[in-house]
Amino acid sequence: MVDRIFRVNMTDLTVSIEDVPADWLGLGGRGLTSTIIATEVPPACHPLGKYNKLVFAPGLLSGTRAANSGRLSAGAKSPLTGTIKESNAGGTASQLLARMGIKALIVEGLPEKDIFYSLKVSTQGVSISEETVLVGKGNFAVVDSLPDHVGVLSIGQAGENRMAAANISVMDPDGKLRSLGRGGLGAVMGSKKIKYIVIDPAGAPKTVPLVDEEKFKVAAKVFVKALHDHPVSGEALPNYGTDILINIVNEVGGLPTRNFRYGQFDGHDQISGEKMRELIDARGGKARHGCHPGCVIQCSQVFVDKDGNYVTSGFEYESIWAMGAGCCIDDLDVLAEADHLMDDMGIDTIETAVAIGVAMEAGVIDFGDGAGFLGLLGEIQQGTPLGRILGSGAAVTGKVYGQTRVPVVKDQAIPAYDPRSVKGIGITYCTSTMGADHTAGYTVATNILKCGGFVDPLQKEGQVELSRNLQIATAAVDSTGLCVFVAFAVLDNPDALPAVVEMINARFGSILTVADVTSLGKSILKTERAFNQAAGFTALDDRLPEFFEEPVSPHDAIWNFTGEEIDAFWDF
Amino acid sequence: MVDRIFRVNMTDLTVSIEDVPADWLGLGGRGLTSTIIATEVPPACHPLGKYNKLVFAPGLLSGTRAANSGRLSAGAKSPLTGTIKESNAGGTASQLLARMGIKALIVEGLPEKDIFYSLKVSTQGVSISEETVLVGKGNFAVVDSLPDHVGVLSIGQAGENRMAAANISVMDPDGKLRSLGRGGLGAVMGSKKIKYIVIDPAGAPKTVPLVDEEKFKVAAKVFVKALHDHPVSGEALPNYGTDILINIVNEVGGLPTRNFRYGQFDGHDQISGEKMRELIDARGGKARHGCHPGCVIQCSQVFVDKDGNYVTSGFEYESIWAMGAGCCIDDLDVLAEADHLMDDMGIDTIETAVAIGVAMEAGVIDFGDGAGFLGLLGEIQQGTPLGRILGSGAAVTGKVYGQTRVPVVKDQAIPAYDPRSVKGIGITYCTSTMGADHTAGYTVATNILKCGGFVDPLQKEGQVELSRNLQIATAAVDSTGLCVFVAFAVLDNPDALPAVVEMINARFGSILTVADVTSLGKSILKTERAFNQAAGFTALDDRLPEFFEEPVSPHDAIWNFTGEEIDAFWDF
Repeated sequence: MVDRIFRVNMTDLTVSIEDVPADWLGLGGRGLTSTIIATEVPPACHPLGKYNKLVFAPGLLSGTRAANSGRLSAGAKSPLTGTIKESNAGGTASQLLARMGIKALIVEGLPEKDIFYSLKVSTQGVSISEETVLVGKGNFAVVDSLPDHVGVLSIGQAGENRMAAANISVMDPDGKLRSLGRGGLGAVMGSKKIKYIVIDPAGAPKTVPLVDEEKFKVAAKVFVKALHDHPVSGEALPNYGTDILINIVNEVGGLPTRNFRYGQFDGHDQISGEKMRELIDARGGKARHGCHPGCVIQCSQVFVDKDGNYVTSGFEYESIWAMGAGCCIDDLDVLAEADHLMDDMGIDTIETAVAIGVAMEAGVIDFGDGAGFLGLLGEIQQGTPLGRILGSGAAVTGKVYGQTRVPVVKDQAIPAYDPRSVKGIGITYCTSTMGADHTAGYTVATNILKCGGFVDPLQKEGQVELSRNLQIATAAVDSTGLCVFVAFAVLDNPDALPAVVEMINARFGSILTVADVTSLGKSILKTERAFNQAAGFTALDDRLPEFFEEPVSPHDAIWNFTGEEIDAFWDF
Repeated sequence: MVDRIFRVNMTDLTVSIEDVPADWLGLGGRGLTSTIIATEVPPACHPLGKYNKLVFAPGLLSGTRAANSGRLSAGAKSPLTGTIKESNAGGTASQLLARMGIKALIVEGLPEKDIFYSLKVSTQGVSISEETVLVGKGNFAVVDSLPDHVGVLSIGQAGENRMAAANISVMDPDGKLRSLGRGGLGAVMGSKKIKYIVIDPAGAPKTVPLVDEEKFKVAAKVFVKALHDHPVSGEALPNYGTDILINIVNEVGGLPTRNFRYGQFDGHDQISGEKMRELIDARGGKARHGCHPGCVIQCSQVFVDKDGNYVTSGFEYESIWAMGAGCCIDDLDVLAEADHLMDDMGIDTIETAVAIGVAMEAGVIDFGDGAGFLGLLGEIQQGTPLGRILGSGAAVTGKVYGQTRVPVVKDQAIPAYDPRSVKGIGITYCTSTMGADHTAGYTVATNILKCGGFVDPLQKEGQVELSRNLQIATAAVDSTGLCVFVAFAVLDNPDALPAVVEMINARFGSILTVADVTSLGKSILKTERAFNQAAGFTALDDRLPEFFEEPVSPHDAIWNFTGEEIDAFWDF
């Protein structure tokens, strides 16, 4: 089976199946989506206009039995940031597409008619149908209406309304949702009037073909052992989920609180991973849950209410931080309900909660007002003017309310680590081609968790190099379909990265080395940066907002990098 | 009397009176505000933050008896565009400041307390008082509460709420309002918590001192004759106001209609200058009215309702176009009421009406719905979420509603001439340092009114040169305090510009030539552009939105300049 490109044109509602260009053969995931966007989308185009494209691509290892290889990348020019954008998530879609031999699904054009459509992807091609029943409904209504064995990509009301914080949901193995969260890709899907995409694997093999099965098996075993052996991916994340970070980051004074005014949150214990585990155990939820088949880390969970009823899963540190510490709401039950609502309407939890923090700063509701927070989510879901403001993200919310304390870089909300007291991540926020994004180069691993060594988070020394190395590595990892949480093992266990390279070689018959992985990462970052520059971005966009010159407690830390120091990031 | 700089620091509520630096002595109006902003404001700062400054400066000829010399310039970094911004208006303030020897009033810093203040400027300095009574009220309440002999600069509810389309009102000789309209300077004043500024001329001479009174008198006479002799400034504008342009621009197919979808408006006759004059004559309004003492063009008017009651004045073509053709509302009485409401709440009529056109495109209200339009103005005045969206301007409105047909350049709304069918003004929209702005280089004079020759508006040839020459000349004229409508005489009468130079020489004892005026204009544009570049703007910001590639009726004209052709504007 030879991989192919499936291309859907929404203007004339046609579909084509194409050979994979030679240049794209060695690419997958982020490397492929960014390359396609950079090749085919005019950088200065309107993100919601006819020239933008939406690309889905499984990773290089997706569809194999490699542990944690089921991440799907989506790419487009972002309506939130105006930059190139890649966002990746778990769920079943990546593995299904890979097994079906679909190297990438490219959606282009805008329909003439103001009606919604659904796409059904099979090994034979893509059929396009008008959709009316599910329009106006949330993502859960979509996945509930479809059989479990298909893959689903869907938008909720936020995406239909082309809100810049709208995400795309990916159905997980249990019919729950994972999110292609950041950068408003749901608005791009909404602009193309696609409510959902069904991926039907009928006729596809159970796994993708491997050139060298034995070599693959050996490498996969080394790799999975490395994941199991590392205390973060083998213990902390499985037991407590990502929310384990609340107490850790609070302890070091890097937990942005009350719209980035303080570095510690009084209510941290109430929203911590330990508290979540306690509630799950007491109520009969599920402490471990994988977002895609083959995940051995299982950092997701099933969070239930007092009566044991399902509320949410994939209840992440970032979401909990943004709503909890960021907005001073110290009640996990409120946060879980909010998380569910945002999943259902299909909107990025980080962007939305940070936007609400900005709205709290403006006095729209009070900090700490959990009921008010849920009320604002209702406004977003209904598409009221206030809801549309918040759904447009933190930067627009700040503009509309004339605020100066607006934590964004390239108009994307800054996530859960204060850049003044975790300075490496500040460099990542500034320089990421995606706008402020912790996953792009997760220096927290080294600054806080002491994986791959230690770089003091409060000192400037070494942060640029740390962020650079991690961003290069991450761009490559994001191309494999592997979860970013394999990074802990990769940083600390010298066997892990060679095993990944071996698996890729065994899959494709290639002869890549670890050095090639670095080259790939560099090349992806440069491709993305060139797109952004051609879209009008300059070094001045690689900066934190002015208010980060204020010292933040408890360390009275300030952001004190010069522009020149930040720009040195790109010296590679 | 030696001119001085008055500086108010709102952080510590102090005032200083400073000598004019040697570099600034030959500057006035826009040349001075842009120089001060470029010198003292960090280009990348937040426009509503503590590093931005708000500068007011009378023109070089303000305070003399030169005809039409009473324009006041205000400058800051714009919260609407992020660029440097100069906006100028009539009213009495410019002449009063000049007579008081105040070369510029600089307001800097942000107050610690969340309360409003008023400033009282006298020849002795500036006093700062807390203000409570007028907070939350409109501009008319402010001017009505103050004596006629003082000058007033004021913000309405839009400025208090720091809306990016908020303007600053300047009281005119009849206690009515003129507007420092574009670019959101009212939001900057609101961020500095200044509700109004009173300018009390007690003790100031009736006119500024002249080095050579006789020479001045002779030149002033030549100049005023040139204004009277020209058919535009001597006949058309005095008789019909700027609204004379509705039928003219409609006739040539350049009147942007229904949010720039068409080039002609069926209802043009109902909103034309001729119709306005007919209503004014029939109802007992006033057809001629000057915005400042010494104006001989008198393009303003007093528009009254069916019962002869005052509704509005300064009822301009741009406002009428934006609400009328742009939003398809063909009822001058509705537009007059809307104009009054916008003046009272202190918001730019162009930006607001174009934003409402974008909202109509999104289905918020229907095109042509006059009552709905007035209702939306009520939302802005009350600061509701919907009102704040619209008050943030067309670009934000487009983002919030996920629209692609958003007519802005550098996030400022495109005004009343379709750039596809009046191509010279398109070059001005693209390249102006201020964002889309017709006054920055009014090629319509030559493209349509055939002043200073004729350049076919539908052809590309000659447009870049035309816009360049006019933008250079305008930057200089904006520094004199002269109204931009002197340009018609300057373009067609060889005596006019030398007379302006002679007046400046007679005022200051300088030995400037006409060539020096060109140099000044170039220098101002370069100063402004350098600020914008240091704020992160690139050539890619000098572009029209994507949708202008669509042909527009009646000529099926498209925007077909390459980036390279546009960028050649800056070759000087």
